[in-house]
Order: sequence, then structure tokens, then C-alpha cells
Amino acid sequence: MNGKFISIEGIEGAGKSTQMRFIQSFLEHQGKTVVVTREPGGTVLGEQIRELLLTPRDEGMSHDAELLLMFAARAEHLEQVIKPALSRGDWVLSDRFVDATFAYQGGGRGIDIKRIESISDWTLQAIHTDLTLLFDLPVAVGQERVIKRSQDKDRFEQEKGVFFEKIRQCYLQRADHEPDRIKKIDAGQTIENIQHQVTTALMALL
Amino acid sequence: MNGKFISIEGIEGAGKSTQMRFIQSFLEHQGKTVVVTREPGGTVLGEQIRELLLTPRDEGMSHDAELLLMFAARAEHLEQVIKPALSRGDWVLSDRFVDATFAYQGGGRGIDIKRIESISDWTLQAIHTDLTLLFDLPVAVGQERVIKRSQDKDRFEQEKGVFFEKIRQCYLQRADHEPDRIKKIDAGQTIENIQHQVTTALMALL
Ligand SMILES: Nc1ncnc2c1ncn2[C@@H]1O[C@H](COP(=O)(O)OP(=O)(O)OP(=O)(O)O)[C@@H](O)[C@H]1O
Ligand SMILES: Nc1ncnc2c1ncn2[C@@H]1O[C@H](COP(=O)(O)OP(=O)(O)OP(=O)(O)O)[C@@H](O)[C@H]1O
Ligand SMILES: [Mg+2]
Ligand SMILES: [Mg+2]
Repeated sequence: MNGKFISIEGIEGAGKSTQMRFIQSFLEHQGKTVVVTREPGGTVLGEQIRELLLTPRDEGMSHDAELLLMFAARAEHLEQVIKPALSRGDWVLSDRFVDATFAYQGGGRGIDIKRIESISDWTLQAIHTDLTLLFDLPVAVGQERVIKRSQDKDRFEQEKGVFFEKIRQCYLQRADHEPDRIKKIDAGQTIENIQHQVTTALMALL
Repeated sequence: MNGKFISIEGIEGAGKSTQMRFIQSFLEHQGKTVVVTREPGGTVLGEQIRELLLTPRDEGMSHDAELLLMFAARAEHLEQVIKPALSRGDWVLSDRFVDATFAYQGGGRGIDIKRIESISDWTLQAIHTDLTLLFDLPVAVGQERVIKRSQDKDRFEQEKGVFFEKIRQCYLQRADHEPDRIKKIDAGQTIENIQHQVTTALMALL
């Protein structure tokens, strides 16, 4: 099994989707077969769950239900997409993975990290990313970029700045605790400058 | 907190929905306020998850995703309906609860019971039913009744008899292990006869 599993993380507007395309073409030029996917989503069921999660709802959603839905989508994603790709020897490039759940449902919503770890271990078992690129930038800068993109705000985007601040800090803590797996990228720079940082991180993996 | 939590369990066609109405009116005649609900479902989100679970799908669904979806719906149900009702002192009457997950996803799908217990403990914490009525009858008898009812078959109903046989046995084992909480009802009898058995079980609780 020579495939590697890469995830891209960061708050809204960090430039994840923008850089995904660059990473994919960089890896393909290195002769890798790349499966590009995203969370929540990546499967028929997962995209339906994504819809349930992102649609704003007057009645709200309990934090535990939100967390279990994230992992339900992830279980399907692992079974149908990620594990088969890795066992074929393909590379998997996912726009968000489990670190997002720790950051959003742990840091953001305030679910105890140990409770998240227990569901995470249950669902992932031996699976982990080989490399996670954390696109870090000040919340206000991300928000500004997203406003320019201007679509309707989803259930998470409707949250206030303090929610995203907690998420950013949680991401940074995780990067500090796992510096070999999680590489911090300064996402406040120009697109080209970010590409250079990304390339350096990818070359270490190749 | 004087409210009690009752669930009704059993394979397809056991007569659960038929007897729910009787149980509700019996309890109301005893002066109880009864919240009637069902799983998966019972909330806006839960009914949307029920739809995802029951709709037949060509691509199938991984067992872990199915299990996590059941518990996502249940987490919402606990938070929005069951816990508030019990703390008001109401009685809760649910068409299926967590024993169904052990029977269907454990007995039926073959997920290890210890793995289910771990998600169950995580989601339910201190909550458990005060009384679970297990409507037991031979699989073939239940199937015959359901055929007469004749709607389109959902993703579970499409399973073969052997699937429901495993579910029945798992339900019976649970009743053997927890005879105080789970009361077995012979559901192969006439509706009236079943009502007498149900009444006896309810009187012990009142
Ligand atoms: N380095 C950059 N400098 C300035 N603008 C950028 C940069 N990278 C991306 N953008 C722009 O910012 C906006 C958000 O970028 P993108 O959609 O890639 O972010 P994202 O991290 O995928 O956000 P989301 O979490 O909402 O999916 C886009 O309009 C994009 O063109
Ligand atoms: N004791 C009984 N004897 C004969 N028929 C019955 C009896 N109880 C219910 N039925 C009939 O059997 C069919 C199935 O009953 P019901 O819908 O109550 O079962 P259920 O356990 O709720 O099934 P499901 O799990 O599919 O919801 C109905 O048509 C009902 O009228
Ligand atoms: Mg994006
Ligand atoms: Mg029914």
C-alpha cells in the first residue's frame, strides 16, 4: 500500500478549496492517482447527511446529534471511498477530515474532547491521515474573503466570529500536539506564496 | 420526576403500532399525560434521518454509518423530546428505542454488541426505559401480517426471513438478561388477548 491520505483543514475562507486544485495537479504531475473528496460528504449518503448538517433550522440541532451525523457520514466515506482508494495504492485528498470535527464540534460547540475521541476511535480504527495541511489565518481575514464569495450562509457560517476563533485555537493546539502529521500553513499570504509552503510539505511526504 | 419511559419492541408485523394506541388510552385513563413518539424519528431531524435509513439504495449503506445514523436520530430525540417530557413528569411511549438497535444492527447486521454498547452508553448516559414490551412472534407470522398491510417495502423490510430470525433471537436474549425491564408479550394471540398481557405489565408499573 503506497497510497497516502492527505486532508486540508482550516476555518471558512482559509483557501482550502482554492489550494485543493493545486495540490491535486502537483501530485498528478508526480505520477500519483489522486482521489479528490470532501467532508462531510464524498458519498451519496454523505452528501445527504451534509445537507442535513448545513441547512439552517429554526429548531436547532443537539450537539451530540451533530457529532454523530458527522461520524455517520465519515463511516460511509471511509468504507466506500477512502479505504478502497488507499488499498488500490491511490492518494486520497480530502477537503476536511476528522480534525475538523475536533475543531468545530469540540472547540466550537464545546463537546468534551475525550467524548469526541471515543467516537473517533470507534469509527476510524487504524485509519489516520499521513499529512494534514492546516490553513491558518485570522478569523476576520477568512470572513472577509467569504463575504466576497457571497452565497447564502449555511448553518455553520451563520455562527459568530467567537465560534470561529475557538475553532482556530483548537486547530492550532492540535497542530502543536502532532507536528509530524499536521503542518501549519500561513494562509494569510498570496496564493502563490501558499503554494510554495504547500509544495514543501508535500515534498517531505513524497 | 414521576414520568415513566416505555418502549415497544418487536419484529415487523408484531402489532406494535396497533397496541400503541391501546397503551396510550389506557395510561390516559389512569390520568397520565402521555407523549407518543417513535424511532427512528420523533423530531424534525430524526424523521429526516429515518428517511435516509429506510429508503432503499442501490449502493447499500455501511453498517457503521447505519448505526451512527440511528444514534444521531436518538440523540436528537432524547434532547428535544424524551428528556424534556420526563422532567415535566409526563410518560413517554416510544414505538422502538435502543433495544431495536441491538437487535437490528447487532443481531441482524452483525455489528459486535460491545461496539454498540459503547455508542449506546455515550449517547444515552443515564437514560433507560422503565419498561420495554417485547412483542414476540414467529417471523413468518409477522411477515404474513405485513404482506396484508402491503405498502412498498423499506430498506429493512426488503431483508430476508433469516435476517428477522436473528433479530427475534437477539430480542429474546435481551429479555432473558433483563427480565425486570423487558417484558415478553406473546404477540401471536388475538388483539384482545395481547391487550390483557399488556395491561398486566402496565399495572405492575403504575
Ligand atoms: N491566498 C488568498 N488570498 C486572497 N484570497 C484568497 C486566497 N485564497 C483563496 N482566496 C479567495 O477567498 C475565498 C475563499 O477561498 P476558498 O473557497 O478556497 O476557501 P475555503 O477554505 O475552501 O472556504 P470554505 O471553508 O468556506 O469552503 C475565495 O473567493 C478565494 O478565491
Ligand atoms: N394480534 C393480531 N392478530 C392479527 N393481526 C394483527 C394483530 N395485531 C396487529 N395485526 C395486524 O397486523 C398488521 C401489522 O400490525 P402493526 O402495524 O401494528 O405491526 P408493527 O409491529 O407496528 O409493524 P412494523 O414493525 O412494520 O411497524 C396490521 O395490519 C395489523 O392490523
Ligand atoms: Mg471550501
Ligand atoms: Mg409499526
